[in-house]
Amino acid sequence: MTATTIRRSRDVPTLVTAAREGDHRAVARLVSLVENDDPVLPDVAAALAPHTGSAQVIGLTGSPGVGKSTTTNELVRALRARGQRVGVLAVDPSSPFTGGAILGDRVRMQDHATDSGVYIRSMSSRGHLGGLAAATPQAVRVLEGAGCDVVLIETVGVGQAEVEIASLADTTLVLLAPGMGDAIQAVKAGILEIADVFVVNKADRDGADATYHDIQGMIGLGERGPGEWRPQVVRSVANRAEGIDDVMAAIDKHREWLARPLPGGAGVHDELTRRREARAAAEVEAIALGALRARIGTLRNGEALPTLASRVAAGKLDPYAAARELLSTLDT
Amino acid sequence: MTATTIRRSRDVPTLVTAAREGDHRAVARLVSLVENDDPVLPDVAAALAPHTGSAQVIGLTGSPGVGKSTTTNELVRALRARGQRVGVLAVDPSSPFTGGAILGDRVRMQDHATDSGVYIRSMSSRGHLGGLAAATPQAVRVLEGAGCDVVLIETVGVGQAEVEIASLADTTLVLLAPGMGDAIQAVKAGILEIADVFVVNKADRDGADATYHDIQGMIGLGERGPGEWRPQVVRSVANRAEGIDDVMAAIDKHREWLARPLPGGAGVHDELTRRREARAAAEVEAIALGALRARIGTLRNGEALPTLASRVAAGKLDPYAAARELLSTLDT
Repeated sequence: MTATTIRRSRDVPTLVTAAREGDHRAVARLVSLVENDDPVLPDVAAALAPHTGSAQVIGLTGSPGVGKSTTTNELVRALRARGQRVGVLAVDPSSPFTGGAILGDRVRMQDHATDSGVYIRSMSSRGHLGGLAAATPQAVRVLEGAGCDVVLIETVGVGQAEVEIASLADTTLVLLAPGMGDAIQAVKAGILEIADVFVVNKADRDGADATYHDIQGMIGLGERGPGEWRPQVVRSVANRAEGIDDVMAAIDKHREWLARPLPGGAGVHDELTRRREARAAAEVEAIALGALRARIGTLRNGEALPTLASRVAAGKLDPYAAARELLSTLDT
Repeated sequence: MTATTIRRSRDVPTLVTAAREGDHRAVARLVSLVENDDPVLPDVAAALAPHTGSAQVIGLTGSPGVGKSTTTNELVRALRARGQRVGVLAVDPSSPFTGGAILGDRVRMQDHATDSGVYIRSMSSRGHLGGLAAATPQAVRVLEGAGCDVVLIETVGVGQAEVEIASLADTTLVLLAPGMGDAIQAVKAGILEIADVFVVNKADRDGADATYHDIQGMIGLGERGPGEWRPQVVRSVANRAEGIDDVMAAIDKHREWLARPLPGGAGVHDELTRRREARAAAEVEAIALGALRARIGTLRNGEALPTLASRVAAGKLDPYAAARELLSTLDT
């Protein structure tokens, strides 16, 4: 199955079947279709839907240099030892300007290169109208449809985009390393709100205790109602495979918490379902808005928006009036 | 004029008039309306439009600790010495989760606190449906409407959100400091594409030469057609007010370049107009999409999206089919 053969919707079932039978190239091809917002994506999504909804999704984020790849590598090893099939998605929230991504340090996880139970893909979203909010869950669904029991989403950095991606996971790990000022960064970026587990990696280095206690202190400051999750903090030295059991135990503990029945709710039964429904809502909304954005771009042969914009830039029209005019063109 | 008095659209002209007459509290109030996506904003925009379109907008970004506030402070001083009225907008791309912004180090520019020709405001966009892409240009327009000749937009960090904000300026300065690994970060975040001027601040420190030459080397690698801008690199020690003349000279040089006539184009006459029209287009689009997002949220009494999302989460419906259903509900 080569790239050029997927030109029509009728090829999609073949490709999805191949992916489900363990063809790594078919999986890679499907993720590429997601990246590029290919016109056949709706067919891909329809073919995958019946096989999705149950994989565990783990997010992993942190600044450059904290040891994300090494930690991911060890987590994959631990999950494989449990007999689970694992997908790794290295997401690059690359700028809208570069296009090109610097993925060098993330595409290599040579330890698992020959393990057929592990899929590793890097992905950017530069071609996707719905952005990462729409592209990432679709790629997760590809890996899930290909039979992965667990999907790890790895993102670099602690900026807003990374926070959003991390929030697509059931359980989000935030990696820190001693002496990088990450604790303060974490608060600034809102990481404290989305981290379910903090991993202080490189825990054999000077300052690890200080980082550990800083984070514990910040967690202690947060208000938490009864039954709410208190973020766990664990230490690891991933490049010596130390502390990975503790990381896994924290993930398991969080998963149990997610699955506990919620009191009173009629529709939603547990936190896991609640999170997944919220994620699905964000995804559907992003796809719908992407489609609306495309429609706006084509109004009056693509001239509607630029014409209004030039009047706004010149101070002849205010942007709200311009937006109203744009929407009335859209509605007619 | 207190916060509670602006409750109806008919108060807007009074507020805008007060702002134009130099009432700092009126300006602050208008920026707050922008932050919170207040329902009266369309009226504010309409009242401001005739007074906008000519202010120079300068963006300034860089990692924490490179000396953004100090540099901004000195630039304000230099612009004031030229007799220009200056607005400073410290934009915080705070996470969607925190809401609360940590602005501590940015709200203080005490040197100019008593200068009536300087407006300083910090802003986040958590309440704004169109996000920073829509909120920032509106806040710029408030400052412009209040009579500012120059508006400085200061953002922290080098992530995607910051890159987007920086790109709202006519001229974008990226601050670096020696030994922070910023050069590599800059490339990763796509900063190289958006920086018009690099400022190597703290140029009296070890490693300043290396940073300077790293950046020059990266600029040299970029392909550039004839007439294209080559990013300038200047050195400064902002806390001793050294090198600020060079920064100002680089800004002036870039402004001249922006204003040069473009060859051939019938509609667009110069790069400055081209940039401003592109920014206006992004702003109008963001407002329109924000309105569409609000409409989507209210479909079937707000139940349309959650209902579809729960079917997607359960694997009973794919997200594209869900988005199609959502859009058909929107269209009817």
